[in-house]
Amino acid sequence: MSKIAPTSIPRRGLLLVMSSPSGAGKTTLSRKLLAADSNIAMSVSVTTRKPRPGEVDGKDYHFIDQATFEKMVAAGELLEWATVFGNSYGTPKKPVEEALAKGRDVLFDIDWQGTQQLAQAMEDDLVRVFILPPNAETLRDRLIGRAQDSSSVVAKRMAEAPREISHWPEYDYVVVNDDADAAHLKVTAILTAERLRRRRQVGLTDFVRVMMKDL
Amino acid sequence: MSKIAPTSIPRRGLLLVMSSPSGAGKTTLSRKLLAADSNIAMSVSVTTRKPRPGEVDGKDYHFIDQATFEKMVAAGELLEWATVFGNSYGTPKKPVEEALAKGRDVLFDIDWQGTQQLAQAMEDDLVRVFILPPNAETLRDRLIGRAQDSSSVVAKRMAEAPREISHWPEYDYVVVNDDADAAHLKVTAILTAERLRRRRQVGLTDFVRVMMKDL
Repeated sequence: MSKIAPTSIPRRGLLLVMSSPSGAGKTTLSRKLLAADSNIAMSVSVTTRKPRPGEVDGKDYHFIDQATFEKMVAAGELLEWATVFGNSYGTPKKPVEEALAKGRDVLFDIDWQGTQQLAQAMEDDLVRVFILPPNAETLRDRLIGRAQDSSSVVAKRMAEAPREISHWPEYDYVVVNDDADAAHLKVTAILTAERLRRRRQVGLTDFVRVMMKDL
Repeated sequence: MSKIAPTSIPRRGLLLVMSSPSGAGKTTLSRKLLAADSNIAMSVSVTTRKPRPGEVDGKDYHFIDQATFEKMVAAGELLEWATVFGNSYGTPKKPVEEALAKGRDVLFDIDWQGTQQLAQAMEDDLVRVFILPPNAETLRDRLIGRAQDSSSVVAKRMAEAPREISHWPEYDYVVVNDDADAAHLKVTAILTAERLRRRRQVGLTDFVRVMMKDL
């Protein structure tokens, strides 16, 4: 048999949401995924808070003022948004829709509330993954292990964990992160599989039509 | 952080169906999957046809007589069945349900008609994968390459291909098999991902309850 170039079927991109309690290892998993796969990129949120040292406008966030934020909300230009400690955050719709149409995937690091909003707007494109720690002790160890956080921050995050965890039944997939490499392989398999979903492979109809003509 | 044993969450098994036109490489993919993964096994059908040389009762098929077959149909003991050239074939329900309850997966090499019947009975447990050849020429080459088949058999299989292919929209996933190893990785990713589906991980409720107590 002759060597065949890999078949490429045009497909629609997907939105991969990873949610978890703080300390479950989600940030590490996001970084590994972005480093391993050039067809997925992090969604860049708009925010009304001031940039922190080292943060780059347009890369970490789009830094906007409150009036602009409110205009975007009113115009339906945000897929999901929230206000935390007086600062507003949101996901602009336009770049997400452009990415999907080009067959590019978008990664979201948002909580259950943002996920619910995103599901309202984009249910069919959404792939929801909940990351769980293997047990409470590991969650505590991971939070304490973050040298930059004070013990009161650790205590606050531990106190928030049960509420966040209680939303696991709203997700499509659940990955228990007892080992970062194993969990990364699992998330990668989910991404690979979801890309192969028939309904996302929008070029299949044409592909099959061409094949049928030659049969 | 201490070394943690991999977390094992009890889950319900799944039914993986692979369908394709003859010559798309499905048999090779099935064999690779069974060899690579000890938690999935091929469904063993009942049949009224006589064993061929080398076929083992209980392994290749359960060989039964027509009266027994008809009793199984009447008693609702078959998940799907068909009669081809006067011989009847069917999938017994009991071993499939036992496997699912034990968290074991079952592989089916059936056509679109069997898949439709299985979907009626077991929709939630079903994962449907359609295997497509990269193009018509490759399908023809693969069918001709099977030394044991006469040219009339090849012609008959080519003639049947369009009807089989026309059912691709009824499947959850579509894999274009232009390279056996690449296609194997794709099918493996689908199996890995589907095992991580929240609703199949029936032990999660207890797992989270225990974790919550310690938080």
